[in-house]
Amino acid sequence: MPDPNITLTTDFGTNSAYVAALKGAILSVNPAARLVDLSHQVPPQDVRHTAYFLEAAVPYFPPGTIHVVVVDPGVGSGRALLCIETAGQRLLAPDNGCWTFLPEPSAVYRLANARYWRHQVSDTFHGRDILGPAAGHVSLGVAPAQLGPRLADWVRIHEPQPRRSPDGWIGEVVYIDHFGNLITNLKGDVLAENANRVCVAGCEVAARGRTYSDVEPGCALTLISSGGHVEIAVNLGNAAQRLGAKVGAVVRIFV
Amino acid sequence: MPDPNITLTTDFGTNSAYVAALKGAILSVNPAARLVDLSHQVPPQDVRHTAYFLEAAVPYFPPGTIHVVVVDPGVGSGRALLCIETAGQRLLAPDNGCWTFLPEPSAVYRLANARYWRHQVSDTFHGRDILGPAAGHVSLGVAPAQLGPRLADWVRIHEPQPRRSPDGWIGEVVYIDHFGNLITNLKGDVLAENANRVCVAGCEVAARGRTYSDVEPGCALTLISSGGHVEIAVNLGNAAQRLGAKVGAVVRIFV
Amino acid sequence: MPDPNITLTTDFGTNSAYVAALKGAILSVNPAARLVDLSHQVPPQDVRHTAYFLEAAVPYFPPGTIHVVVVDPGVGSGRALLCIETAGQRLLAPDNGCWTFLPEPSAVYRLANARYWRHQVSDTFHGRDILGPAAGHVSLGVAPAQLGPRLADWVRIHEPQPRRSPDGWIGEVVYIDHFGNLITNLKGDVLAENANRVCVAGCEVAARGRTYSDVEPGCALTLISSGGHVEIAVNLGNAAQRLGAKVGAVVRIFV
Repeated sequence: MPDPNITLTTDFGTNSAYVAALKGAILSVNPAARLVDLSHQVPPQDVRHTAYFLEAAVPYFPPGTIHVVVVDPGVGSGRALLCIETAGQRLLAPDNGCWTFLPEPSAVYRLANARYWRHQVSDTFHGRDILGPAAGHVSLGVAPAQLGPRLADWVRIHEPQPRRSPDGWIGEVVYIDHFGNLITNLKGDVLAENANRVCVAGCEVAARGRTYSDVEPGCALTLISSGGHVEIAVNLGNAAQRLGAKVGAVVRIFV
Repeated sequence: MPDPNITLTTDFGTNSAYVAALKGAILSVNPAARLVDLSHQVPPQDVRHTAYFLEAAVPYFPPGTIHVVVVDPGVGSGRALLCIETAGQRLLAPDNGCWTFLPEPSAVYRLANARYWRHQVSDTFHGRDILGPAAGHVSLGVAPAQLGPRLADWVRIHEPQPRRSPDGWIGEVVYIDHFGNLITNLKGDVLAENANRVCVAGCEVAARGRTYSDVEPGCALTLISSGGHVEIAVNLGNAAQRLGAKVGAVVRIFV
Repeated sequence: MPDPNITLTTDFGTNSAYVAALKGAILSVNPAARLVDLSHQVPPQDVRHTAYFLEAAVPYFPPGTIHVVVVDPGVGSGRALLCIETAGQRLLAPDNGCWTFLPEPSAVYRLANARYWRHQVSDTFHGRDILGPAAGHVSLGVAPAQLGPRLADWVRIHEPQPRRSPDGWIGEVVYIDHFGNLITNLKGDVLAENANRVCVAGCEVAARGRTYSDVEPGCALTLISSGGHVEIAVNLGNAAQRLGAKVGAVVRIFV
């Protein structure tokens, strides 16, 4: 048995001592845990972004992985903290919908058993004081059911769904990656084999490709993203800047 | 015995090959060391910031942890390099006061024994050439006393202390976190149970809370930080931007 | 045998779910691999920068280290993916010259054996689908020769070489670090023991030093970098900003 992997996803910033304190709190419970940074640069308190982030990250990890997610604008309020079992992996996260797009959970528990928390719990940093220590205990073999009562209900994000139009599909940009590529909420299979006309933020994107270099440098194209969604990109360029598109921009596909 | 954890705190930047070289130098001594990034985004050469960073990070780690700290504006000059034993943990750091706010050390050694350094030592990168390799050797079981002579004196940062005023306390902002929350040098116990009037950077903060969501989104409040200090924050907002407050801004508490 | 170290160098950005997916893909093959982040902040698609980055990073790692490099503007095109053996270490990287400045390889293989890839391979994310899984398999003991055929030829970057001038040397700035220090393509041994006159971006740098603090704070100097090259720096300051120098700026040394 290799030492357990515990991943970390937060909005603390890479310049933050909060990341360090969270890591220390986990290692204080299980010094043999292997910490794997996913990102600490989730936009502050942006639960919706976190949900897309986790959808693009968690499914690639092996069963047995433990994920700690601390994007927690409601810290210290009445919101619950959860341990979620999904596809053989476990997440420790606030009950704010940040894991909405992951596979249906096999069980969800509310962290209620203070035995698995830091002895002193602050009002503003439950990542360090509850989620991290709980993850440490799970990595040592504590069963999620020991952490607290099983829940039947939890918060979900409700996202605008893509819809049919008379001449195709209407969706929106839900995620912009570091390269400026626009990831939409439209599944790749709405794209025809042949070129479709695609409009995003009022600009038409004429070219259809399989990969970025299918068009000349600086040219825009539509392709299927590595996560299986419709993506608009500029070869060797930044589509978000070029097309002036932001998260929420309307995307129309004419089929 | 799990493999030893060696944490890294630098001002090298997350885009920097210096981080990579430091990691390689440690792993070249002990390939089984587990590297744990705390931050590489400490403001360049800002020793004072580093001291607050370490105060907010190191106490959460378990005994046995080794910390490498490379914020070293005096590299190559006469400043010493240290191995510090504090609360069962060890730090390898320049003698510039960056660990001033940690618990009183049980022993401090000056790194003088070149046997535990890289065979070739540059004039401008003692993190890679001395601190990192020394940490690797300590993680293999080398006793700090083998690294060099014990010291009785070292550099300390002298911080302005909060002081009493006729009507309360006067302190200052010493740290601004990634969310824009203002952390002060005033201990939380100067706050009364009931609301105090608090002024920061000339603005009055009327509300007192336990956690951010105790006030409406966008409203400012005073609370006790997760590290036990007086903190001024804006719920779902950025207090530093909103109040125009910088590190050093005067904070007055009227009791 | 300690668990194998696999380092990661990408241009994905620290805010990116692509980093997370890459890590998951590696750990899905070998959950015992230790992941070591070098940087995810290589400038997007900047192969030349990557080559300088790797030159400053890889040589400090011990034999047996596996490096995954994903700076891959040609993803999905005809460019090959490689496994490179150099100085006892292994790199998994696209064939775009990003490893040009590393020691001459003992063998180079083309990743052709899909048995060591993810079962489903996208057109736009070969880091996650091919390079990462292949690295995982190598870390489990798969010999590079099993990954595909041995190659005799590969892409190299051709850099402008420093040249002699009637009165000294002419080179250029090839890398600017996080502190704004200017690293040139001139080897340190072109500097005389005594002060040379150095011009960069049209500014004269009069002082010669061994380390930054050899000059007053705010003053510029020429020194030998920790990597052995001519470097222009400002003590406790940012030389790139002060001198208005960018990558490619001409550097003249008068001997």
